[in-house]
Amino acid sequence: MVSPAIRVAPSAANRALNLLRTVQYTHPPNCPCHKNPNHHHNHQQTPSLLNHVKRRMSTPVDRSREKEYAFEMAASSIRFGPGATKEVGMDFTNIGAKRVCIVTDSNVAKLDAMKQAVEGLTREGIQFTIFDKVRTEPKDSSIKEAIAFAKPYKPDAFLAVGMRRLCNRHCQTNEPIHRLPRSRLPRLRQRTLRQRPAGRQTPPPLVAVPTTAGTGSETTGTAIFDLVSKKAKTGIAHRNLKPTLGICDPLNTRTMPSAVHAASGLDVLCHSLESWTAIPYNERTPRPTNPINRPAYQGANPISDIFSLAALRSTVKYLPRAVRDPEDHEAQSEMLLAATLAGVGFGNAGVHLCHGMSYPISSQNPGYKHAGYEVDHPIIPHGVSVAVTAPAVFRFTAASNPDRHLAAAEAFGVDISNVKRESAGEVLGAAIAEFLATLGDQPRGLKDLGFKAADLDGLVDGTIPQQRVLMLAPSLSKELEAEKGELRKLLEQSLDY
Amino acid sequence: MVSPAIRVAPSAANRALNLLRTVQYTHPPNCPCHKNPNHHHNHQQTPSLLNHVKRRMSTPVDRSREKEYAFEMAASSIRFGPGATKEVGMDFTNIGAKRVCIVTDSNVAKLDAMKQAVEGLTREGIQFTIFDKVRTEPKDSSIKEAIAFAKPYKPDAFLAVGMRRLCNRHCQTNEPIHRLPRSRLPRLRQRTLRQRPAGRQTPPPLVAVPTTAGTGSETTGTAIFDLVSKKAKTGIAHRNLKPTLGICDPLNTRTMPSAVHAASGLDVLCHSLESWTAIPYNERTPRPTNPINRPAYQGANPISDIFSLAALRSTVKYLPRAVRDPEDHEAQSEMLLAATLAGVGFGNAGVHLCHGMSYPISSQNPGYKHAGYEVDHPIIPHGVSVAVTAPAVFRFTAASNPDRHLAAAEAFGVDISNVKRESAGEVLGAAIAEFLATLGDQPRGLKDLGFKAADLDGLVDGTIPQQRVLMLAPSLSKELEAEKGELRKLLEQSLDY
Repeated sequence: MVSPAIRVAPSAANRALNLLRTVQYTHPPNCPCHKNPNHHHNHQQTPSLLNHVKRRMSTPVDRSREKEYAFEMAASSIRFGPGATKEVGMDFTNIGAKRVCIVTDSNVAKLDAMKQAVEGLTREGIQFTIFDKVRTEPKDSSIKEAIAFAKPYKPDAFLAVGMRRLCNRHCQTNEPIHRLPRSRLPRLRQRTLRQRPAGRQTPPPLVAVPTTAGTGSETTGTAIFDLVSKKAKTGIAHRNLKPTLGICDPLNTRTMPSAVHAASGLDVLCHSLESWTAIPYNERTPRPTNPINRPAYQGANPISDIFSLAALRSTVKYLPRAVRDPEDHEAQSEMLLAATLAGVGFGNAGVHLCHGMSYPISSQNPGYKHAGYEVDHPIIPHGVSVAVTAPAVFRFTAASNPDRHLAAAEAFGVDISNVKRESAGEVLGAAIAEFLATLGDQPRGLKDLGFKAADLDGLVDGTIPQQRVLMLAPSLSKELEAEKGELRKLLEQSLDY
Repeated sequence: MVSPAIRVAPSAANRALNLLRTVQYTHPPNCPCHKNPNHHHNHQQTPSLLNHVKRRMSTPVDRSREKEYAFEMAASSIRFGPGATKEVGMDFTNIGAKRVCIVTDSNVAKLDAMKQAVEGLTREGIQFTIFDKVRTEPKDSSIKEAIAFAKPYKPDAFLAVGMRRLCNRHCQTNEPIHRLPRSRLPRLRQRTLRQRPAGRQTPPPLVAVPTTAGTGSETTGTAIFDLVSKKAKTGIAHRNLKPTLGICDPLNTRTMPSAVHAASGLDVLCHSLESWTAIPYNERTPRPTNPINRPAYQGANPISDIFSLAALRSTVKYLPRAVRDPEDHEAQSEMLLAATLAGVGFGNAGVHLCHGMSYPISSQNPGYKHAGYEVDHPIIPHGVSVAVTAPAVFRFTAASNPDRHLAAAEAFGVDISNVKRESAGEVLGAAIAEFLATLGDQPRGLKDLGFKAADLDGLVDGTIPQQRVLMLAPSLSKELEAEKGELRKLLEQSLDY
């Protein structure tokens, strides 16, 4: 119970008294003994508080083994509607922004989404500049290039148009960003580490307009890059990096070719399946001692589950229609919504094996050029590299939670009423393989992408560093050699089916 | 397509050129002709933009009849977990707050939630003061009282512990706040009108810790009060007023008496049922000309639907257990989660008839004192005043969307496979009445609360001003006399059942 002494009436005299009492109840702000809960101290305390603190400190525990007990959900505000892009100028006026830096790439800059955005800003008399040099595989130097462009312009807000490029990398972090020492990180991240900080540390508003239905980047706070000096893929992953507002305008995805609908939709499929089957948040270790260290990729939780399952059901229903018929605007719109829902789901739960293995699959591409992608170099689209291992992955993970895997199979339309729990993996794996086959020109395994058995060890070695996502994989061994063996088996089973 | 001229390389020369071009593309910031889309102008424009603007302006339309085409979802970040309250001190440290104003009432101040919060702040060395004079029916003077208390303390953040009091009023706004002229509103609202404004206009961070499982206030941006000079219930309703973080700690609801579990759970039930059945967002008129005028209570939409239906299913499953057994902590925890989910649902879709009629039911209380509420004055708890009309309300609204009402009946466990669509209202109404009966000491209609047939006209007159929620009611007539007749009939049908 709170001492009545600190509940005071708002008279001037009492306010003064209250201030004194507050000081009495309050330690000097930087008292180091409060940073370490295992360190005793001898501050003046009211007896009850002191006893409580003593009680807490009497039993030292190995925190690295303590399991998590809470989860935290955060998502950008989302506006969804055909034509909503043109409102973006008013949004910037409404937040008081007068100089906007638009960030895009040279392809997206030619799309109608960009035209609508530029016209929206122009109508409102907002000044803007356009950075159209976003790279597919950004290095820290790419980020510095963007900063060097934006800084002299002194924008008070940012507008991202098209974010497909960011997706390829959302899983490729060797270690959680908050565990890297500050000196290893670019300045940008140091400015944005704190959650919604008071005053000037708040990052400027960011409005994000997706032009594909896949990444869900408009809801997540992850940006990945090569830290060249350390030869490491790492990233800035923080809830504070979430866009202020995501504008999901189904008119903006109508220009996607059928092959892009399919590949980006497969990303949505795996976002939802992986986050739905990720280890539960309360099985994750270690429990963070400070809530700021609770990762966004925290494991499945009751709220992310709602998003992931809804996105999965929608994808199964609408993706084949969106791929088949370029005029099926209802299906395309539903896929954009599914991508956003899946983004909220995996953005707060995480992804695991399909995404973990997709990185070496993409980067060790033996020369495969996906049909329908008009580029002059070999390419395994991100969604394709993710989905190719999905049948094997979910056969493997089913043992961790057969009921969840049966529910996923049911979302694919399987009648599970007579399926035994031990068959959950087989049934879901088959359902996924069958679903992939309905989408047209999809590879039937890694062999179709040009990989041979001799390539498997390289793929395993490329997967192992993806610990940020592998730690969320159910059923996976924690011992390195065993883990390698399991990954190798999954990749082997993915050679063809 | 965007002119290549405005996509520039980031060299210094090009940046200068780009600035010039940007100016060319940009109107003076305060040009009034852009505030009114029906007003012609003769600015220098590039031909394509000019043609586009001309085309838009050549067909004047009656915007008041245009239906909405977009929806916008926003919710606070939510942390959920038993014991999470004690993390709140670290949260304030993490956001850089050093002086916190705790807002609570004198009853909640005695609860363990408050103790945990105070200890959390103390451990982190954060200074704080406590305002414990939150009122059940706040007037504008109550808000001024709180401001007068907080202002001299100069807090850089706020912590709300317990928000049950706010709930009673979330539906009692005569008109949407954004339509009131600025002069009619207290200063507070003028400071918070803009969405996440740049710089100093951002409201200070607010962390909210609910102590009941009902209102969902930890996720919503609505605060209601009596504007005494205008004899009007009005409110501050804006996404920017959402808490920065809601901490949902199931330990904090364990002390609720069974009657409070039941009453606050009935609020959750109606939040979910009303938001699930509210008119669809794209049937709402008028379409706002500026996204800032898109109300939070925008009608049902595909994302609010997910929350509302999940909350409904959880409430049906867990509320009877939470009411029956004070030791059923799983059910209590699930009800806290359901309250939050329903909060996100109705906070982005709205409520309608049950909430609209609950205001006069509560305020015109003939003398009913709800069992289990240890107060010295008559009281109809908010959840009870809301649920008492629910069977009649959903019988009435079913015609607007029988499928949705059947899905709701299914959530109550009804086998709907052989139910005809025209029976949806009957079936759902019966399911709700039966559910209420399982919760123990609930009134079986307005008569049990002491109302007589002669009181009905007064209740109708008290409901009519609640246009903010009535506008979301499906099936309700827009013509005043017809609307009154329908409300009277609903109240009459709610006298007993």
